[in-house]
Amino acid sequence: MSSAVSAPSASARITALDVLDVRFPTSEHLDGSDAMNPEPDYSAAYVILRTDAGDGLEGHALAFTTGRGNDVQAAAIAALAPHVVGLSVEEVCGDLGAFSRSLVHDPQLRWLGPEKGAIHMATGAVVNAAWDLAAKRAGKPVWRFLGEMPPEELVAQVDFRWLSDALTPEDALDILCRAEPGRQERTARLLERGYPAYTTTPGWLGYSDEKLARLAREAVAAGFTQIKLKVGASLEDDVRRMQVARETVGAGIRIAVDANQRWDVQDAIDWVRALAPYQPYWIEEPTSPDDILGHAAVRKAVGPIKVATGEHIANRVVFKQLLQAGAVDIVQIDSARVGGVNENIAILLLASKFGVPVCPHAGGVGLCEMVQHLSMFDYVAVSGTAENRVIEYVDHLHEHFTDPVRIADGHYLAPELPGLSAQMHPESLKEYAYPDGPVWTARV
Amino acid sequence: MSSAVSAPSASARITALDVLDVRFPTSEHLDGSDAMNPEPDYSAAYVILRTDAGDGLEGHALAFTTGRGNDVQAAAIAALAPHVVGLSVEEVCGDLGAFSRSLVHDPQLRWLGPEKGAIHMATGAVVNAAWDLAAKRAGKPVWRFLGEMPPEELVAQVDFRWLSDALTPEDALDILCRAEPGRQERTARLLERGYPAYTTTPGWLGYSDEKLARLAREAVAAGFTQIKLKVGASLEDDVRRMQVARETVGAGIRIAVDANQRWDVQDAIDWVRALAPYQPYWIEEPTSPDDILGHAAVRKAVGPIKVATGEHIANRVVFKQLLQAGAVDIVQIDSARVGGVNENIAILLLASKFGVPVCPHAGGVGLCEMVQHLSMFDYVAVSGTAENRVIEYVDHLHEHFTDPVRIADGHYLAPELPGLSAQMHPESLKEYAYPDGPVWTARV
Repeated sequence: MSSAVSAPSASARITALDVLDVRFPTSEHLDGSDAMNPEPDYSAAYVILRTDAGDGLEGHALAFTTGRGNDVQAAAIAALAPHVVGLSVEEVCGDLGAFSRSLVHDPQLRWLGPEKGAIHMATGAVVNAAWDLAAKRAGKPVWRFLGEMPPEELVAQVDFRWLSDALTPEDALDILCRAEPGRQERTARLLERGYPAYTTTPGWLGYSDEKLARLAREAVAAGFTQIKLKVGASLEDDVRRMQVARETVGAGIRIAVDANQRWDVQDAIDWVRALAPYQPYWIEEPTSPDDILGHAAVRKAVGPIKVATGEHIANRVVFKQLLQAGAVDIVQIDSARVGGVNENIAILLLASKFGVPVCPHAGGVGLCEMVQHLSMFDYVAVSGTAENRVIEYVDHLHEHFTDPVRIADGHYLAPELPGLSAQMHPESLKEYAYPDGPVWTARV
Repeated sequence: MSSAVSAPSASARITALDVLDVRFPTSEHLDGSDAMNPEPDYSAAYVILRTDAGDGLEGHALAFTTGRGNDVQAAAIAALAPHVVGLSVEEVCGDLGAFSRSLVHDPQLRWLGPEKGAIHMATGAVVNAAWDLAAKRAGKPVWRFLGEMPPEELVAQVDFRWLSDALTPEDALDILCRAEPGRQERTARLLERGYPAYTTTPGWLGYSDEKLARLAREAVAAGFTQIKLKVGASLEDDVRRMQVARETVGAGIRIAVDANQRWDVQDAIDWVRALAPYQPYWIEEPTSPDDILGHAAVRKAVGPIKVATGEHIANRVVFKQLLQAGAVDIVQIDSARVGGVNENIAILLLASKFGVPVCPHAGGVGLCEMVQHLSMFDYVAVSGTAENRVIEYVDHLHEHFTDPVRIADGHYLAPELPGLSAQMHPESLKEYAYPDGPVWTARV
């Protein structure tokens, strides 16, 4: 594969799929600690798609992990390289639906899933890197690139396999066409005010009550109308922390709680009921992310407290069932768990069909940067509303990104630079390279 | 970690976890071809646990893949090595429940699942290798090692997390105690007659009608009372092949059909109804393995034709829901998909609790060798019956194993050598090593 920089753009090829193992030693402070993730080292299996188009553009994206296993994730991404390197840039960027399906349905690689775990997250990272490249070529941030696509072209992004009992291409087209008339007006409003956010910063399990109260006060002062507390390690502690939080923020601020899968079904019901006097807004990940029927049982028992899940939901088929079973009040998409932008379009359409609001999971490394594009696209062109919808915000590691999220008055401001906002500074990629970067060699 | 061979056994340690990438070029003949796997190269990410016990015993097991991605699977297994190397052999073999939980619940590696995909299959391979080692140390085949364990010790093997709404430790103990009185009698019967098998050999998609008919005749002559046909690529072809098969074997032989996830829910219903005149016994994998509600809908529509699934079911939580939702008539455990022997004990107990027969998936590389132990254990100590239960048999690649399955009169004969029967000949491991073994270098 030649990498001549003067090749005419129409015949440009993808010349390389680079994969980098990048890890941040976040376990040193208890940022990011919860009932199932006591000591995460937030990490990225980072992808760069390079071309010989000579336009200086690259596709950047990442799969997020919590440390150990980031090398396995990188190996899974590398396994996709033979399907990508050598392809025409025009063809990939011109039909990202076909590109994503070609990765998802490799008949040998799919044995490692199918459509779940490391191989599916790898697909998501590569697909997202292709969206970054395509949007950069179009000179638009991804939310706008998507938000200006004709409904028919959006429908073509979706893999409807296994969805047709809940969502057909006709349903999808109908949803998108209904939202089309208001696109311009909503785009203008978005550019003006941004998209509502909530913050998890006050609520990590490792924090003292004093730190929790201080950070909660700061969150409200900064304009957030919702905060989130991690729960699930000790009921006594959780009741106390919830009380501290409620007394600090008052009745008008929503407090979500997040158990990170810690409970069996009955445990979840009992625990949430014990927290009910302090009005939790939603209970997030009460039990196994695979347990559709379990979530339905919890929801039935704890209403009007809402049930939310999604950051570990493997694919659109599980989201479909959560909606069919009436198991969730809130769909929490994640930019780096499923098969990339394409599968998340499917999930946004499913949520819209069932009338369930989408409040994305974010945090980690670059998840805020990437997922804001999906919520903003949802607002502009799918659900057409931001009511009762908030994107998670965590103030970790944004300094490593070239186009970091911008928060003002409790809102994500709409990204203006072209692409998916997942690109990291070259110095960060070098410094935190694992195991050979200076940050890690200094630790040994 | 020293590897002194004269160390006293009580202080022996696990000194190495070796991982080998072994691939068989099965795509050259259309053996193993189905609607979703047109050209598989049956492969194993192969594990060897070595110790310094000086007794010459090693733990062997494998994760099965279909070719590309076997390196990713091997990387996932290697990521577990730091959790295993250095452990006391006594402690691991003396509490395999604790050992398996320690791998499943690593708080960083679980992000790659949780409990699904490459990282969970890796856990399964390592856990199975530990069972192989433990059974060899006890001088028993695994089915017998398990079948002679006290009920309380068997309950301790199970991770009940996320199961308690369907199966509690008390339920499990009750099931095992009820089956205890007949253990010896059933063991004797098993040693005498073996365990019923069915064969998939006649039914691969790539075969001509003539080959299908010839192999079906041979299967019946060899004592099999059930065969299986792959379906799902072309309805016209499937109707014709089903007719050929039914005319060949007559009314008294069961013919299962297997769509390997090819359909959406309504497609599955329509297709199975078109095959109904030829009395398929079960429809296997009609749709996505994640689609619990979809399987329930198919089952409701196609009864009395049975619905079977399991080879791609990621874990016990999904099996739990398939049973809770009344979505399956047949539970198809797989020895190398979930977290090893321990999680399969949980699934056998769940199936027994719900009164649903277990008919394992096998084939691939070594899957027959390993899974026979689980069905035989189920017969001896869990369900206590082999009625309407059959283990899949495929006559591929057994020659590479040191204790290959033995089939007589349509039955698996009970393994007699100690261990899990997953050990391959050293020459096979060398010859089919990928990409450097002579079989592969000769192909380049």
